[in-house]
Amino acid sequence: MEIKNLGIDERLFNKISGIAQKMPFYNLLGIRSTAFGPGFAELKVSTRAEHANHLDMGHGGLLLSLADGAMGNAIRSLGILATTVDFSTALMSPAPLGQDILARGQVIKAGKNLIFARAQVYAGDKQLVETRGTFFRMGTIDFEE
Amino acid sequence: MEIKNLGIDERLFNKISGIAQKMPFYNLLGIRSTAFGPGFAELKVSTRAEHANHLDMGHGGLLLSLADGAMGNAIRSLGILATTVDFSTALMSPAPLGQDILARGQVIKAGKNLIFARAQVYAGDKQLVETRGTFFRMGTIDFEE
Amino acid sequence: MEIKNLGIDERLFNKISGIAQKMPFYNLLGIRSTAFGPGFAELKVSTRAEHANHLDMGHGGLLLSLADGAMGNAIRSLGILATTVDFSTALMSPAPLGQDILARGQVIKAGKNLIFARAQVYAGDKQLVETRGTFFRMGTIDFEE
Amino acid sequence: MEIKNLGIDERLFNKISGIAQKMPFYNLLGIRSTAFGPGFAELKVSTRAEHANHLDMGHGGLLLSLADGAMGNAIRSLGILATTVDFSTALMSPAPLGQDILARGQVIKAGKNLIFARAQVYAGDKQLVETRGTFFRMGTIDFEE
Repeated sequence: MEIKNLGIDERLFNKISGIAQKMPFYNLLGIRSTAFGPGFAELKVSTRAEHANHLDMGHGGLLLSLADGAMGNAIRSLGILATTVDFSTALMSPAPLGQDILARGQVIKAGKNLIFARAQVYAGDKQLVETRGTFFRMGTIDFEE
Repeated sequence: MEIKNLGIDERLFNKISGIAQKMPFYNLLGIRSTAFGPGFAELKVSTRAEHANHLDMGHGGLLLSLADGAMGNAIRSLGILATTVDFSTALMSPAPLGQDILARGQVIKAGKNLIFARAQVYAGDKQLVETRGTFFRMGTIDFEE
Repeated sequence: MEIKNLGIDERLFNKISGIAQKMPFYNLLGIRSTAFGPGFAELKVSTRAEHANHLDMGHGGLLLSLADGAMGNAIRSLGILATTVDFSTALMSPAPLGQDILARGQVIKAGKNLIFARAQVYAGDKQLVETRGTFFRMGTIDFEE
Repeated sequence: MEIKNLGIDERLFNKISGIAQKMPFYNLLGIRSTAFGPGFAELKVSTRAEHANHLDMGHGGLLLSLADGAMGNAIRSLGILATTVDFSTALMSPAPLGQDILARGQVIKAGKNLIFARAQVYAGDKQLVETRGTFFRMGTIDFEE
């Protein structure tokens, strides 16, 4: 599936698209990158039986992983290499199985040492999750030859 | 692998051990239950290549899933059926690959409507994660015939 | 100072404006309500010497109180009586003294039992705080005679 | 009221006791330091009418301020100057008025850049609040002449 570039440098886009597509944990969960913009990213997963909890809904851990991934991708869209330090989320509605679940991440503030971001997870129009994350800046993503 | 019963009713133990062993999302991630006590639970995962992020460490989503699972199991050890409402975590150190990662969950307060819990994740003696979760009580786990 | 009504029932507006104006803790801190809309509220405080921490900035507790208050007011603007259950905030920049600090709260979802909200705190154009809160519904605000 | 020294350097103890006693925001709220230990601190407030919310309980903002203060003091007990970055709390029970409310803060990990802490707030034996905080290290507290 193609990833949309919503306005970032083409070389950075190629670099971080590659990072996202190779990420082993995303591949294990079936999470795919669908878009990058400046300080923005979108991820998608099609929930299936193996994502279920014991109540036959998507497990909370899948939603947490999506939200964390969307914020991480949003930060990389600014060329920043960072690590999650603090993660806080509301799980407002359970995730149905057999549906496309979408996560959108946005950077609120990219400071010298700390980056602050938000993410939302949706099933169609319904917001399932609202997340806040704090990240520590480790360096820069090298995308120029 | 055997799950330890650290002091809960044997029928409840059997019921919630079965729930944990069949949980599809745990099986996808390789997360196994290792102990239940009264208001307590322990989970384990052996990190491997497919859990990796792009920096070759365990992905944060794996640690979040472990912490959420440990709190959920700890709540089920009290015979309570609940759903995660709010989840907040510090990621203090990255998770190395190729190691056993352990999560311990404890119930702080089981109220009429809301249950409050904590979890910690460790690699050996090193604490990686400190988590707080708030859960909404949906009912009771039926374990008597 | 006048409180703006941005579109809620006049009787509800009068009722919750009265609640906000009489709130002893707001009065102790000098926090004033400035607006109510549907699922929205705005609070203001003029920071002064007595709000300081030991670094001569506004104490974090003042910002936390503002954010909590803005979400509580936003929920009351829907005629809902609720109590804070879970509160999570990023403190992105310190609050200068001698300035007007503004907090805006919005309801994300008002469910049967749980209400989810966000708040932001600003000094001028600069966002200082991003907050998420989860609230438990206790009842209805009675505003009809 | 005397502050207890539970085992830190006497000069550091005097320095951070002075900081706590002069903190304007604590004095506005009536929050007093009662103890410092290595990576530990205790605060107290006697709740009175001016701390009330509209339901005649202690306002959540008071509890948030106490928890933040207890973690800040616990960090200063290690000679570290830091600022709150991320703060997450469960409000498990409301605070009664006319009682002594106690907050205890503990440092979980003091890293090179980030410090992780917890706090609990109690009314007698009853735990009202469980808090987690992440702090950014700004420097060292100078207490030697």
